[in-house]
Amino acid sequence: MAEQQAGLSGPVEVIGTGLLGTSIGLALRRAGIGVLLSDANPEHVRTAVGLGAGRPRQPEDRPQLVVVAVPPDHLGEVIDRALSASDAVVTDVGSVKSAPLAAVRGHPRVARYVGSHPMAGSERSGPLAASGVLFDGRPWAVTPHQASDADAAALVAALATVCGAVPIELSPVEHDRAVARTSHVPHLLAALAAGRLADAPTEHLALSGQGVRDVTRVAAGDPALYGQIVTANSGAVLDLLTEVRDRLDAVIEAVEAVDRPALEGLLAEGVAGTRAIPGKHGGPTRVTESIFVALPDHPGELARVFADAGASGVNIEDVHMDHDPGRPVGLLELTVEEGRGEQLLASLESKGWVTHR
Amino acid sequence: MAEQQAGLSGPVEVIGTGLLGTSIGLALRRAGIGVLLSDANPEHVRTAVGLGAGRPRQPEDRPQLVVVAVPPDHLGEVIDRALSASDAVVTDVGSVKSAPLAAVRGHPRVARYVGSHPMAGSERSGPLAASGVLFDGRPWAVTPHQASDADAAALVAALATVCGAVPIELSPVEHDRAVARTSHVPHLLAALAAGRLADAPTEHLALSGQGVRDVTRVAAGDPALYGQIVTANSGAVLDLLTEVRDRLDAVIEAVEAVDRPALEGLLAEGVAGTRAIPGKHGGPTRVTESIFVALPDHPGELARVFADAGASGVNIEDVHMDHDPGRPVGLLELTVEEGRGEQLLASLESKGWVTHR
Repeated sequence: MAEQQAGLSGPVEVIGTGLLGTSIGLALRRAGIGVLLSDANPEHVRTAVGLGAGRPRQPEDRPQLVVVAVPPDHLGEVIDRALSASDAVVTDVGSVKSAPLAAVRGHPRVARYVGSHPMAGSERSGPLAASGVLFDGRPWAVTPHQASDADAAALVAALATVCGAVPIELSPVEHDRAVARTSHVPHLLAALAAGRLADAPTEHLALSGQGVRDVTRVAAGDPALYGQIVTANSGAVLDLLTEVRDRLDAVIEAVEAVDRPALEGLLAEGVAGTRAIPGKHGGPTRVTESIFVALPDHPGELARVFADAGASGVNIEDVHMDHDPGRPVGLLELTVEEGRGEQLLASLESKGWVTHR
Repeated sequence: MAEQQAGLSGPVEVIGTGLLGTSIGLALRRAGIGVLLSDANPEHVRTAVGLGAGRPRQPEDRPQLVVVAVPPDHLGEVIDRALSASDAVVTDVGSVKSAPLAAVRGHPRVARYVGSHPMAGSERSGPLAASGVLFDGRPWAVTPHQASDADAAALVAALATVCGAVPIELSPVEHDRAVARTSHVPHLLAALAAGRLADAPTEHLALSGQGVRDVTRVAAGDPALYGQIVTANSGAVLDLLTEVRDRLDAVIEAVEAVDRPALEGLLAEGVAGTRAIPGKHGGPTRVTESIFVALPDHPGELARVFADAGASGVNIEDVHMDHDPGRPVGLLELTVEEGRGEQLLASLESKGWVTHR
């Protein structure tokens, strides 16, 4: 089995039984590995135990690995305490990796600490929102540092694998730069775009299309949590925000001067960026095309359209449902590999669906 | 019939047989209204005629309504010429409404011009991408001005209705402010976020989640087209970009100073903005919850899951498929009305699906 090859035999102590900690417990138990749970809130431990995520930690327990899954503000102190308590390998699952390392860099057992960060979550929180399949197929960053033991990093990578995720090794600094770019700065820009809508007249908002919904969706996240995350990664975030401010100034200048070539150059950077994001399954970006199906808004229609789409033999790469104002018809977007749209379109039309590209 | 009530009997002349013009022709022909087509590119007219969008315009034709569907840069001159050619009502379907009005404000027949803007499109272009159902259920802004005739505005609203869209009346200035807010500025911020990814190391991009994909999706649009649109709406766009720059400076300051309350206040503006966007069917935003289903990546699974979801009796408000790196499992997000998630979850789990919240 994978977990034996990788040397993860357990038990694994999980400190903090919120969404992530409890989900890790569930995933490990699914793999048959012993899990020891603790939390500042004893009710959360009882809930997590009740869900089957492990058993309460006892003083005599000797974990092989400790997973610290507490809020960003408390990571440093809890990792420090875990390193002092035993010679177990210690990891954490916080969204930022340099700050907790800095907090324990002077610890005599810092070689046993290797941070990590599963790229999975939910807008919900607490143990009741947990799931043993939360990490299935997700990237899970593992961030060894100059002073860390290789076997400690391997054990943390094994944790990711056993939980169903794909471990990706990066240094803590690289990780923080990566998430500043792929998560924190996009979040802040989404919040700036969404903020412009807060006091907009209703009749202006009536013109909202799918684009603005997509751009602003992540901005619905908890301000307190994102405040902790962004300030814990201030260096990498500020580097990029400075770049963003320069480019924003250039956009403003280009619009003021009606300097089309300059504006088009800035927009072309964005096009290049969207093409740089890896495609489904982490492979190179696949070229796709979309077709649209008009969808009566009652239960059963989705099942019928996917049954008919399945019968066409064309694999659906992505689906998206559009929200339509003023009438009970939805628009379903089906994304397929380039060149397959015609076949799907013809097949759906032959079954009576109203479609377009 | 709706079109007779509203006074639209045709024929309708469509100048410019690209995606929008040809789609309007198809929608009007579907409603039995005569359509006269012209385009600077005669091949586009032949294609549109071949698709059934109408017949080529002849010198002796007397249209009731002229629809100008040419690129933003050419709107003013083509509207001007159309007003001079007859006493037909003239509209256009450009993304910006003050600039074309300004171009014809001095025309003796300006009372017969009422601009409009269907909130529909595609990343594809040209007559072959057209569809008679492109506008079904979409908002279609109709923008009368101080000098326009009421019957001209009513005829343009009738055009929107006959094409299947929902007419929304706004002044040209209001329209341009609305789309600056709900389309142009979100597009520019998406481009700024995406631009940071263009030269990012591959291992950084490997941490890309669904969030950054959603934030940056619209930034893939054609820079030349968006350059025309944004510069034609420079006033409203600059007002908002100035606000954005102020807020960006405040974000930078808050992150530098680790001023959590200030940062949380800025993020809370974003949360309020996401809640201001109208919900499905233009009604008040409905509170929803999401559940997730692990989905094997082969044809037929989508049909199976929606058949099982349909059997649960819970209406699906929205669907989204997540892209997973490294393994052939997708995550399907199903959004349902708040309080219905548990029922759907239980129903899907009883049919053997691996689900979580």
